Amino acid sequence: MFKVSIIGASGYAGAQLTALVHQHPAMQIADLYVSADSADAHKLFSAVSGQYAHLAARPLTPLVLNECAKVAESVDAVFLCTPHEFSHDVMPQLINKRAKIFDLSGAFRLPDLDTFAAFYGFANQHASIQQQAVYGLAEWFADDIANASLVAVPGCYPTASLTGLLPLQRTGLLDTTFRPVINAVSGVTGAGRKASLTTSFCEVSLQAYGVLSHRHTPEIESYLDQQVIFTPHLGNFKRGILATITAKVKPGVTANDVEQAFIQHYHHQPLVRLTSAFPKVDDVVNTPFVDVHWQVDEQSHYVVIGCAIDNLLKGAASQAMQCANLAFNLPPTQGLLP
Amino acid sequence: MFKVSIIGASGYAGAQLTALVHQHPAMQIADLYVSADSADAHKLFSAVSGQYAHLAARPLTPLVLNECAKVAESVDAVFLCTPHEFSHDVMPQLINKRAKIFDLSGAFRLPDLDTFAAFYGFANQHASIQQQAVYGLAEWFADDIANASLVAVPGCYPTASLTGLLPLQRTGLLDTTFRPVINAVSGVTGAGRKASLTTSFCEVSLQAYGVLSHRHTPEIESYLDQQVIFTPHLGNFKRGILATITAKVKPGVTANDVEQAFIQHYHHQPLVRLTSAFPKVDDVVNTPFVDVHWQVDEQSHYVVIGCAIDNLLKGAASQAMQCANLAFNLPPTQGLLP
Amino acid sequence: MFKVSIIGASGYAGAQLTALVHQHPAMQIADLYVSADSADAHKLFSAVSGQYAHLAARPLTPLVLNECAKVAESVDAVFLCTPHEFSHDVMPQLINKRAKIFDLSGAFRLPDLDTFAAFYGFANQHASIQQQAVYGLAEWFADDIANASLVAVPGCYPTASLTGLLPLQRTGLLDTTFRPVINAVSGVTGAGRKASLTTSFCEVSLQAYGVLSHRHTPEIESYLDQQVIFTPHLGNFKRGILATITAKVKPGVTANDVEQAFIQHYHHQPLVRLTSAFPKVDDVVNTPFVDVHWQVDEQSHYVVIGCAIDNLLKGAASQAMQCANLAFNLPPTQGLLP
Amino acid sequence: MFKVSIIGASGYAGAQLTALVHQHPAMQIADLYVSADSADAHKLFSAVSGQYAHLAARPLTPLVLNECAKVAESVDAVFLCTPHEFSHDVMPQLINKRAKIFDLSGAFRLPDLDTFAAFYGFANQHASIQQQAVYGLAEWFADDIANASLVAVPGCYPTASLTGLLPLQRTGLLDTTFRPVINAVSGVTGAGRKASLTTSFCEVSLQAYGVLSHRHTPEIESYLDQQVIFTPHLGNFKRGILATITAKVKPGVTANDVEQAFIQHYHHQPLVRLTSAFPKVDDVVNTPFVDVHWQVDEQSHYVVIGCAIDNLLKGAASQAMQCANLAFNLPPTQGLLP
Repeated sequence: MFKVSIIGASGYAGAQLTALVHQHPAMQIADLYVSADSADAHKLFSAVSGQYAHLAARPLTPLVLNECAKVAESVDAVFLCTPHEFSHDVMPQLINKRAKIFDLSGAFRLPDLDTFAAFYGFANQHASIQQQAVYGLAEWFADDIANASLVAVPGCYPTASLTGLLPLQRTGLLDTTFRPVINAVSGVTGAGRKASLTTSFCEVSLQAYGVLSHRHTPEIESYLDQQVIFTPHLGNFKRGILATITAKVKPGVTANDVEQAFIQHYHHQPLVRLTSAFPKVDDVVNTPFVDVHWQVDEQSHYVVIGCAIDNLLKGAASQAMQCANLAFNLPPTQGLLP
Repeated sequence: MFKVSIIGASGYAGAQLTALVHQHPAMQIADLYVSADSADAHKLFSAVSGQYAHLAARPLTPLVLNECAKVAESVDAVFLCTPHEFSHDVMPQLINKRAKIFDLSGAFRLPDLDTFAAFYGFANQHASIQQQAVYGLAEWFADDIANASLVAVPGCYPTASLTGLLPLQRTGLLDTTFRPVINAVSGVTGAGRKASLTTSFCEVSLQAYGVLSHRHTPEIESYLDQQVIFTPHLGNFKRGILATITAKVKPGVTANDVEQAFIQHYHHQPLVRLTSAFPKVDDVVNTPFVDVHWQVDEQSHYVVIGCAIDNLLKGAASQAMQCANLAFNLPPTQGLLP
Repeated sequence: MFKVSIIGASGYAGAQLTALVHQHPAMQIADLYVSADSADAHKLFSAVSGQYAHLAARPLTPLVLNECAKVAESVDAVFLCTPHEFSHDVMPQLINKRAKIFDLSGAFRLPDLDTFAAFYGFANQHASIQQQAVYGLAEWFADDIANASLVAVPGCYPTASLTGLLPLQRTGLLDTTFRPVINAVSGVTGAGRKASLTTSFCEVSLQAYGVLSHRHTPEIESYLDQQVIFTPHLGNFKRGILATITAKVKPGVTANDVEQAFIQHYHHQPLVRLTSAFPKVDDVVNTPFVDVHWQVDEQSHYVVIGCAIDNLLKGAASQAMQCANLAFNLPPTQGLLP
Repeated sequence: MFKVSIIGASGYAGAQLTALVHQHPAMQIADLYVSADSADAHKLFSAVSGQYAHLAARPLTPLVLNECAKVAESVDAVFLCTPHEFSHDVMPQLINKRAKIFDLSGAFRLPDLDTFAAFYGFANQHASIQQQAVYGLAEWFADDIANASLVAVPGCYPTASLTGLLPLQRTGLLDTTFRPVINAVSGVTGAGRKASLTTSFCEVSLQAYGVLSHRHTPEIESYLDQQVIFTPHLGNFKRGILATITAKVKPGVTANDVEQAFIQHYHHQPLVRLTSAFPKVDDVVNTPFVDVHWQVDEQSHYVVIGCAIDNLLKGAASQAMQCANLAFNLPPTQGLLP
């Protein structure tokens, strides 16, 4: 049994991840932590959300920063479901100890430090750690993840966007002179577990935000090696992301070429479903799947790709678990599919 | 034109009332106030909510408490869309001046001061003002409202509950040995415009609250003259209330007796719709109507009554406007129906 | 491995049950059937709903009625997720063969045949089969279920209602002169998978239906041995039921007595969660749990009980699976909890 | 008073239009029609939807086709809220009589008859009528509408899309070598009032449809004079459309140029609100407004424009009423704003 600790276990992604570890046949929870000033400190995990009321009554321990090194020595894996700044600040204490580190924040996702500073509002001061970090898009970087000491688990929007675009980009089908236009709608849990007028039930209604400036744009561009236009939206649902991507393929590329690119990259991937119709958010909610479908217009060379994920699972917790399975050489869907 | 000021104009009920005054052919807005420490102070009303972006760009003036008397002297009506404590504290300054006062808080709804203290957590220290207050259930206390200097506009749940029960109680059909059981579900705007984890989009899901202890219980009981069991619920919708009331009628009372009681009291009331099926919340949302339907079992003497309202309109702002129309001797639906 | 066939596998409960069997470590699917005239006949199960797109591509076989006997001989269990009339008509072919039968319809839930005819609109012509039928409320009739050849799996509303009331009734705490008032709200999947204006997204909004006449009333009364007033509502959510029950306890019964009754009956039941607050529908959606909470007013002797379930799981498919686990002497939560 | 008849008064757009006429101070309803085989024939309008229960009890008359000419002679305006085929087939009887015709179907929106046949699946056999038809995008074709005998009221998606793009196209700011990418999400009422599994509450969840093939694409292209990529989505809400448009402007075009283009075309248009943030669907629901906001990246020349409307109002009924106001030389917002 691999021993696992989770920091930030009371947020939506952290709680989801705790539940996944709980049901994983080869992992067991060592400790659950929250930040020292969290309102949930010393509460039981089972009391944080009614969903988890049946789970073992474990306390949420407030984490004293200078004990992080001890945490990293005492377990096989540490999952960080914490703000970017927190992950950034504690990483030197955590890394290169016994535990493999899976960071669900954005702190170590952007290889270019100038871009990071511009989009995150603070400097990544750990350049050498950044060089160790492996991007945790499980279907695409499996070998690197297997050997990583630090996995930067991708953002929810990049997971959906890259899953849709990488097959075309990697096979050279994309018309790279055209920036893919990614419109995506996320459920409200994507904004985190906190009181806010913006995410009040009374106020939420489909709306774009972060237009032409969202920090997931450079993350997508870094791993796609292609500029994009990315427009996120807040939708009136709790969980899920639907990304609709408009791209162009090179002249002469056929619908069949596109289909083969998707099949080639995903036919052996159990958590990618190439569906027979454009995906629907609710079909992936509470599942670790990415659903993908596309339509090609051979005459105009446009392709529209739809990708749906659960933002808290494939967009956060279950992808982190995929990475951990890879890192521990376990079957890739263990603990995720029955 | 009657001049009107609204205190608490940036909350959901206050903003709705502002919009109603704006469309009222015989009223005009004098000033819009918010509390002195409101985050909305000095903003424009049109900026508080995108819904009202087309309305005239009026400032939200922070209200200095000792200027309330001046407000009450300068206009024909003051609407208070404020917390109970605020309404309570400023009422001595407002009352018995030029303006008629319409208070949408609960401060002056309960004639019994001991009950008030028990359910509101503070004492009503203005007993003589309480004696002046008239309960603003428009269809039932029209004459009193017409002559009142202070109208205590009813709560949303009591409006739905009393509309359903008063016809039976007043005609002596109710079996008074059986406490009517009122189950009601409210949209989330009933909780007010504020950041809170409880009303986060991510957290809201149908749930009972305030069980056997909600302050609307004594309000219903006071004006029904009958004990009840009232269980409110938070529902996953923005606006509206559905109350389902289970009561007993006296032995021998027929379905026809019940029907006649409703028709007698409501056939001439333009804002009460006796519908042909049990009411649906969305049929009354954005309207000033109460929809009422019922079913009688003559053998067991049970009657189930359904009442639906928009909590921000008939449960707050449009009922306040009905009261104002009565107080100013205007047609009762002016400004409410085209 | 127990071999299992499911009749009516394309409806919401049938598809959910198919997914449960698929993940059950001790069961395997033999065949999936739909009615001979179903629009889904010959489709693949994985094509019926995007949710199940990853499941093995099994055909939905149209069931010829006179082959039912063969079905019942060839497997260990048959689950019927079919209309009442269908279950009624085929039961003589199915029963007392190799397979244990789990019927999710209402055909064999009511022991009193006159009541059945009055509420279902047709006569149950198989009185002797009815006498063999065991009611599948898993926490309460486990021994009978273990030995049954035919289990009539309870309706969704009765499951929630009886779970809340039986502890008080069985311990003699209920004031039996007061009919418990059960208000319940169901998600729209409770109406089944079919095109209908009533269940159109555009039309659904919280509304009572079947008032004082719903067929789940006699089902609750039969197994509670107590008359009730039951009012169901359609809610604006896909899955889940919340039942709010107002009952009276005998004079002198304390809050502690009530708590002990619940603890005594449920402390060892892994799928009943006695929660620390009134339950929320979304906390049980996609789970096999019943969440239960209550509040007692010792002075007035009223108790309000809240029960929440997923109507397609504890209200249908997962309760059927609990029954099958009991019938096959498997651990009660096998295939339901990790 | 202008006399008005509505054909197709029981659908969502038709009922909404009936309510608008009802509240219009200068119009009165002559007759309400449904198709001869409608399930609503002979019902009262007030019984079709609980929303309209308070409206006068007018019958829904089944329309015999060969009486259409009589209808057009007896009133000042006929609104057609009917299927494309029906509008097409009856138009010769209706046009060039006393009544001005406002057709909310797509039958006469596309000037190019080959395109029409390709996208609508049948031929428009009335080429000369098509030449008379004026496109009813009220803010852009006011003079033509004022003098038209037949107004083809725009589709909901084209209304949102063209409102966002025409200011840039008409001022020559658009980079016409880049096809604007329009992603739009519509509420379910856009699919009409009918029983369908696709629009069942249980099935609806955010999903793209009609990808690269929707008939609103050529409608947008015809009146924008520019090719576009248009991807519609079904959203999990009842009413409203949000269109998010990604376009490019010519090199050198500044954010200020873009702003001036919007201000120049809309500052005097009372039903277009240039909002201070990206629009939210619920802010326009139940209103006749279009909300518009945009963001320019001067370096990359991309502009993202958001437009929100109520699909049943600005996307159908209230735009038809704007056209009628123009045609009858009434104030443009009469009957639409208080």
